[in-house]
Amino acid sequence: MPLSTQQIKFIKALMQKKQRQENKLFVAEGPKVVGDFMRQRFPIQSLYATATYISENENLLKTQTFPVTEISEKELDRISTLTTPNKVLALCHIPEYEINEQEILNRWSLALDGINDPGNMGTIIRMAHWFNIRYAFCSPDCVEAYNPKTVQAAMGSLAAVKVIYTPMDALLNRMAGKIPIFGTFLNGQNCYDVDAGKNGLLVFGSEAHGISPKVASCIDRRISIPPAEGQIPPDSLNAAVSCGIILAEWHRRNRL
Amino acid sequence: MPLSTQQIKFIKALMQKKQRQENKLFVAEGPKVVGDFMRQRFPIQSLYATATYISENENLLKTQTFPVTEISEKELDRISTLTTPNKVLALCHIPEYEINEQEILNRWSLALDGINDPGNMGTIIRMAHWFNIRYAFCSPDCVEAYNPKTVQAAMGSLAAVKVIYTPMDALLNRMAGKIPIFGTFLNGQNCYDVDAGKNGLLVFGSEAHGISPKVASCIDRRISIPPAEGQIPPDSLNAAVSCGIILAEWHRRNRL
Repeated sequence: MPLSTQQIKFIKALMQKKQRQENKLFVAEGPKVVGDFMRQRFPIQSLYATATYISENENLLKTQTFPVTEISEKELDRISTLTTPNKVLALCHIPEYEINEQEILNRWSLALDGINDPGNMGTIIRMAHWFNIRYAFCSPDCVEAYNPKTVQAAMGSLAAVKVIYTPMDALLNRMAGKIPIFGTFLNGQNCYDVDAGKNGLLVFGSEAHGISPKVASCIDRRISIPPAEGQIPPDSLNAAVSCGIILAEWHRRNRL
Repeated sequence: MPLSTQQIKFIKALMQKKQRQENKLFVAEGPKVVGDFMRQRFPIQSLYATATYISENENLLKTQTFPVTEISEKELDRISTLTTPNKVLALCHIPEYEINEQEILNRWSLALDGINDPGNMGTIIRMAHWFNIRYAFCSPDCVEAYNPKTVQAAMGSLAAVKVIYTPMDALLNRMAGKIPIFGTFLNGQNCYDVDAGKNGLLVFGSEAHGISPKVASCIDRRISIPPAEGQIPPDSLNAAVSCGIILAEWHRRNRL
């Protein structure tokens, strides 16, 4: 049965943040992302796929409980946001996570203050997954993690990292004294000279404005990534790159 | 004197790669990028700026030899590619660098194989500058470094890092045996267990396809960034993030 005009309209409307938030749904596309979501039991509401995809993924689909609709390539073209639509599209529930304070106290988590580039946000979620970070707290002015660009850049990692939007200063005030709070600044202590244990919150600000003053006042340890000497370095590093360098360094120390 | 229709047309045409390559010119915008280019003596052909910018930057402009045209905000709107045009736009010469083999033999350089995201390319150029890398060799299928998105993401760092497009396998064959050639792979040696000296070429492939087979065969040392244990990690890290982690690690060792 072909997709109804109403179904097509509904799926396409989810390209808008307002519609995603009202319906608590977002769109994920392509065998990689959708496959990862299924394997990791991320809450999928419904799935639209070509006959080829359905026959190639029979075993994986058999274990799922949501409805699967077979659609033509042409129909996929109509509902896809990708330049090259790719076999499968899923509507997924936007998860609402509880903050498990005990889990946070024993490990490193990210706190993102005003990150507004969708690609950067997806890259950060993916690398958080790489380094086994479970929580990425986001200030309400961060870009929404369920927009199509971020979902694609994060690949399947939205199923592994809990992204929680929450007022950043309230979160940090709540955690203050219970766990070290580190933040990256241009004039902080050299990150290679800083002691970092097995747990903490790592705050990253937007590239344009850095960490906001209200959030900065909650930070215990200001750290920096040192540029190479013998030159005038650029003003800053990309936020996702800074985050990757710090996470890799913490991980290196803990494995040594 | 207001901008002529022909001037406007010429500047706007430089949004197209073909036009940039024919004219050997590209567009840089905003006080940050244009200011860095002037301070670093990057070859500017001509500059268009608002009266405010010209009066605020009198001393800097006085030291330059290219023509400066005062334009209105409205004219800037017409020629700008930015959502929020920002005071100044410069036409810059696309530099043609010679490869100074001696300079390459004594330091680390980047070799980018098929990096095709403009933002990633700009981020990589900026971080190369941060870590005092002088050369970024790019395979001909890399995204062109002078497109507006890359220029803005690189900020002023295009003036500090020599970006050279050249067939990658020919370059690596030429450098083989003279300098160690490292490449990042999914199944390489743990980068923290690898000896890396003061010089080498560091090859990064595209995220979709990795390092191409022809280039891979020229690589001496295959390295990887280890993911955290206790989980199924994502398939890969973003190319710019991988590059940042390795450059930071080499830099950390050399400063210790």
